Amino acid sequence: MSNKRKVAILGATGAVGQRYIQLLQGHPWFKIEVLAASERSAGKKYKDACNWIMESNLPKEIAEMPVANADVASVEKAGDVDLVFSSLPGDLAGQVENEFASMYPVFSKASAHRMEKDVPLIIPEINADHAELIKVQQQLRGWKGFISTDPNCSTIQMAITLKPLMQYGLRQVVVNTMQALSGAGYPGVASLDIIDNVIPFISGEEDKMETEALKILGTYKGKGVKNADFQISASCNRVQVKDGHLESIFVKLDQDPSLEQIEAAFEDFKGAPQLLKLPSAPANPIIVRHEKNRPQPRFDRDAGCGMSVVVGRIRKDPIMTFKYMCLGHNTVRGAAGGGILSAELYVAKGLA
Amino acid sequence: MSNKRKVAILGATGAVGQRYIQLLQGHPWFKIEVLAASERSAGKKYKDACNWIMESNLPKEIAEMPVANADVASVEKAGDVDLVFSSLPGDLAGQVENEFASMYPVFSKASAHRMEKDVPLIIPEINADHAELIKVQQQLRGWKGFISTDPNCSTIQMAITLKPLMQYGLRQVVVNTMQALSGAGYPGVASLDIIDNVIPFISGEEDKMETEALKILGTYKGKGVKNADFQISASCNRVQVKDGHLESIFVKLDQDPSLEQIEAAFEDFKGAPQLLKLPSAPANPIIVRHEKNRPQPRFDRDAGCGMSVVVGRIRKDPIMTFKYMCLGHNTVRGAAGGGILSAELYVAKGLA
Amino acid sequence: MSNKRKVAILGATGAVGQRYIQLLQGHPWFKIEVLAASERSAGKKYKDACNWIMESNLPKEIAEMPVANADVASVEKAGDVDLVFSSLPGDLAGQVENEFASMYPVFSKASAHRMEKDVPLIIPEINADHAELIKVQQQLRGWKGFISTDPNCSTIQMAITLKPLMQYGLRQVVVNTMQALSGAGYPGVASLDIIDNVIPFISGEEDKMETEALKILGTYKGKGVKNADFQISASCNRVQVKDGHLESIFVKLDQDPSLEQIEAAFEDFKGAPQLLKLPSAPANPIIVRHEKNRPQPRFDRDAGCGMSVVVGRIRKDPIMTFKYMCLGHNTVRGAAGGGILSAELYVAKGLA
Amino acid sequence: MSNKRKVAILGATGAVGQRYIQLLQGHPWFKIEVLAASERSAGKKYKDACNWIMESNLPKEIAEMPVANADVASVEKAGDVDLVFSSLPGDLAGQVENEFASMYPVFSKASAHRMEKDVPLIIPEINADHAELIKVQQQLRGWKGFISTDPNCSTIQMAITLKPLMQYGLRQVVVNTMQALSGAGYPGVASLDIIDNVIPFISGEEDKMETEALKILGTYKGKGVKNADFQISASCNRVQVKDGHLESIFVKLDQDPSLEQIEAAFEDFKGAPQLLKLPSAPANPIIVRHEKNRPQPRFDRDAGCGMSVVVGRIRKDPIMTFKYMCLGHNTVRGAAGGGILSAELYVAKGLA
Repeated sequence: MSNKRKVAILGATGAVGQRYIQLLQGHPWFKIEVLAASERSAGKKYKDACNWIMESNLPKEIAEMPVANADVASVEKAGDVDLVFSSLPGDLAGQVENEFASMYPVFSKASAHRMEKDVPLIIPEINADHAELIKVQQQLRGWKGFISTDPNCSTIQMAITLKPLMQYGLRQVVVNTMQALSGAGYPGVASLDIIDNVIPFISGEEDKMETEALKILGTYKGKGVKNADFQISASCNRVQVKDGHLESIFVKLDQDPSLEQIEAAFEDFKGAPQLLKLPSAPANPIIVRHEKNRPQPRFDRDAGCGMSVVVGRIRKDPIMTFKYMCLGHNTVRGAAGGGILSAELYVAKGLA
Repeated sequence: MSNKRKVAILGATGAVGQRYIQLLQGHPWFKIEVLAASERSAGKKYKDACNWIMESNLPKEIAEMPVANADVASVEKAGDVDLVFSSLPGDLAGQVENEFASMYPVFSKASAHRMEKDVPLIIPEINADHAELIKVQQQLRGWKGFISTDPNCSTIQMAITLKPLMQYGLRQVVVNTMQALSGAGYPGVASLDIIDNVIPFISGEEDKMETEALKILGTYKGKGVKNADFQISASCNRVQVKDGHLESIFVKLDQDPSLEQIEAAFEDFKGAPQLLKLPSAPANPIIVRHEKNRPQPRFDRDAGCGMSVVVGRIRKDPIMTFKYMCLGHNTVRGAAGGGILSAELYVAKGLA
Repeated sequence: MSNKRKVAILGATGAVGQRYIQLLQGHPWFKIEVLAASERSAGKKYKDACNWIMESNLPKEIAEMPVANADVASVEKAGDVDLVFSSLPGDLAGQVENEFASMYPVFSKASAHRMEKDVPLIIPEINADHAELIKVQQQLRGWKGFISTDPNCSTIQMAITLKPLMQYGLRQVVVNTMQALSGAGYPGVASLDIIDNVIPFISGEEDKMETEALKILGTYKGKGVKNADFQISASCNRVQVKDGHLESIFVKLDQDPSLEQIEAAFEDFKGAPQLLKLPSAPANPIIVRHEKNRPQPRFDRDAGCGMSVVVGRIRKDPIMTFKYMCLGHNTVRGAAGGGILSAELYVAKGLA
Repeated sequence: MSNKRKVAILGATGAVGQRYIQLLQGHPWFKIEVLAASERSAGKKYKDACNWIMESNLPKEIAEMPVANADVASVEKAGDVDLVFSSLPGDLAGQVENEFASMYPVFSKASAHRMEKDVPLIIPEINADHAELIKVQQQLRGWKGFISTDPNCSTIQMAITLKPLMQYGLRQVVVNTMQALSGAGYPGVASLDIIDNVIPFISGEEDKMETEALKILGTYKGKGVKNADFQISASCNRVQVKDGHLESIFVKLDQDPSLEQIEAAFEDFKGAPQLLKLPSAPANPIIVRHEKNRPQPRFDRDAGCGMSVVVGRIRKDPIMTFKYMCLGHNTVRGAAGGGILSAELYVAKGLA
């Protein structure tokens, strides 16, 4: 299809960059035009620059593509590009994404710009209207392009389950995560650190969970986002699981809905991607499992092709209002898949 | 030493029974006299009845001991016994322990009798005075012996850390556990269930955590125990760790002590075992680690020979008062080691 | 399609039985008609009798099917059946399969009948002609049906790679296996046995590898199979991998082909399933990987939908002629997938 | 004790360096005087330069020691030193060890010098007489000190088991290894590479196993070592085990000893460390386990405080003469413990 949008992937050799490549194979709207990465990789063929860690084979045409340096001049030299996916490391992303955003729509998985007031932090099912914030951004910054950001992986899946609870007056959220190895990138967690072990610390993660969700679930007011008015406390752990973050969530609500009402709220939840029938939208953003021991990472992470969040063990709580388990694929819904869904949303809304 | 007390171990072939055997090697006060188990094992040599799963070698003299059936007549035929450790499965324990308790002091790791009103539920550092409850029990039941019970493994380590917080007015505890495989006994968790996975369910565990701690931290009133007046909410998970339960704990207090005060309360905490210099007492019931990523199961489970609880990541909480991580060895402090320490307490107090 | 053959699965609740169900979904020639298992499961709905351990969801119509007892009368009462897949445990399989084989074609994954002289031991790519042996069997035993057996999982993948080497005069094979957990069935290997460990023993496995391959690679002589004339020595280990047996193979040949010749022999190898275009036939029975560190279980077990064997690290050997690594999916090619491919072969040849 | 030899550890912050520190605590002959590492660490306190990965706590006095740069001037400035343990990375070790060896006895775990003709490659139980080779080395190189090297970890344990077989005419050895994560150092193997996986490749390892053992088991002839006259073929794999290499070994002998003779040869084997009663010598260099499923890494790696090699599953082989499993602790016997034992040997012989 000749009118597919041509995309560049910044940070293409990393774990999330690889997932972008994998998920964009055969995408109906997007076509990979340029792969870009840090200086160490630039100039090499992708297959030589990248230690491919996806279980599916590295696509042959990707393998032979050259890797450009992650700057505008190099990327433009490598090909004509319509939009940019960035999974650059946090410390690099800030400046480089700004440079690209002056010209191109940039969909960023990096944390650098997430909390800036004129930058949308998007989960398409929740806050599709926040996308309009780029107009403020473009005006303020004088950019032709823009930056739209995706939240932290463990925040995304939690926030999706919180959205349908807002109607009952969400007050407090206590969350404990058990996060997968792939969330730390590659090489990431040393095997000697995690064998027969759990690591009860992930740098910066608790702060992200406690702040990002308030912006995501906030209200767009034409000029900016007013944060949602509830509290979050997070405790984050790394466990020996390849993919799939599992979260134990305790929620305090103003109202006291029945478990059946909660379940229905989860199961009936739909958002813009479902209404707009975006290519990467799962039929159900939230799937409820009724077995007593689900969701589990290995069995539930691929639900909805990795784009559904799976919820289970919904039960009344003696302190808060109720508690449940929540599972999402951290590098699909929580990273590359979420980024692609965001870009689809902007395209469908005529914003990119 | 000829005047060591002679003990029988009921459930001697199971995972906890094996740990009893391991920990009682060279014990200054106790000597293993009889090994008892279910009918399937009775009559065999221990080495033939047991699939030994401890990393240390099966002691030679234990290997050759016969296994008696777990009933009073068979145990008495096998040897003179002064006291009994029971790690029988829950469904068997109720009746069999009653039978033994009419004659002998029984220290039980089973859940069957824990919540009975005249049965002490003991963590020696916390509620040594509850041991007196056996006098009520003996009078009511007309027994020469008694039953004293040890709490559930994940409850023990949590309760030890809650005790020094009581002075600040403990109101609410939210706890999420990441529990080791050995907690499920042997063969226990199938490898196919846990590889690349977390199981967010342990049968009966959340209920035990939410109720047992209230009795343990309650007040002995001469005739019974008045439960402590705070609330607990638990969410329990199984992770791929051999030994060592890790718990993420959020605590709400009436007062607002500083983190330094909390740390000092943990570090200064001592109980009866330390005062009485019991043989299995750790120097410090609670050890505080100051690294940002501790405690971890593989590195901290053997602290204090597995009898200390290790605490770390103490931090203020936006919803509750503060939060911290807590780690204990589930088959030492949380099972056989805790049981032995209880028995030592009774002996030191002249009650057994 | 109304003229699909109706199949019964004996041992339908076990790990291999579940894989049969999963792989037969949408099969063009076969339709699941009856699920049968041991007495403990008989009479229940499949979803209640079975602890489903496949990552894909239990198909809804299967979930509601009743489980029949694994005897002819019960199976016939449950439905009309054209052929039978058996993954019964070894001790049960012998007698039950005989009973069914007097009436029906039985494709057995059990070891009970493999080495009987009139029973074919089939890997369709290797010895499709051995299928004719059922005529001898039927004559000798007076059966209307027959038994055809599939080899042991670790033997299948080794044998497939040995077949194209026969042309160079195969003399000796030394093989060390590193086998997946799923090979032991469910619940199978206890997690406490395998965490941070390797178990250098699998009951009966070495003997199977050292004998079965000789029959498979033997010559069909009208009345029986003359074993191949080479020697095998095996050493078998269990490792912490979910699926995918990895084997390190050292081979001594009469001739001294170049590594290029060996590689070509592997890559060019085709058998009856490819010629007959059987539905479950992989395009390539053997795939050669050229990376220095492949094949690996997690990355290569799904090659050819789990039906291809993946070979790598082909190198000259200082003692034998050459050595290589070999990887196969033990419950697809090595069990249910292999069984289905065998049945397809018989159907295509008009023998079933 | 004032007359302990003062040692410097080069590469003190690495995984093997840490093991040296751990094993030298309380050593009767050696005292840690200087810790040295690469420039990146030099100048820092050890606790700040090192990510301590031993399960035992970092000793307090070590934690506060400064780290010197790994050159002679810096080490001499940091303290008076009598001998040097080196666990530098291979690429650094060559030149740096030469520099130190001109002045000091250097016991090296690096591969750089192992195969040089005038450099001893020592396993004290096997070839204590090879230590004399340093006299040739000192004369040739004009050094006051010397270099003595320790073999590769997987070679050490294999060679120890081969030594007592030499009497039966050792001809051929086929070995397949399943090696622990700690053999790759820290951070070493990425957790994403090894979860649910085996990696059938370790760079350089097969070549080391196929060549080093011939020198170790060779004969010292006054001026050099004549290699042993047998052949080795190795295939090396990384498995998900923390410590303890497991090896499957097939051996061809000239003679055909009974399994009882082989067992006795293993069990009776003693060498110089046992005769000289060296402090780190295990009572038995080889321990034979008779269970059908041993040795296993988690259960047997600590035998003889990690200094014994554990053998099991000794059985006749259809192709070679017999086969067995062999297990050793790769960072104790296979690295730091082996290095310390070597140094003890030189001291006991008056050579250092």
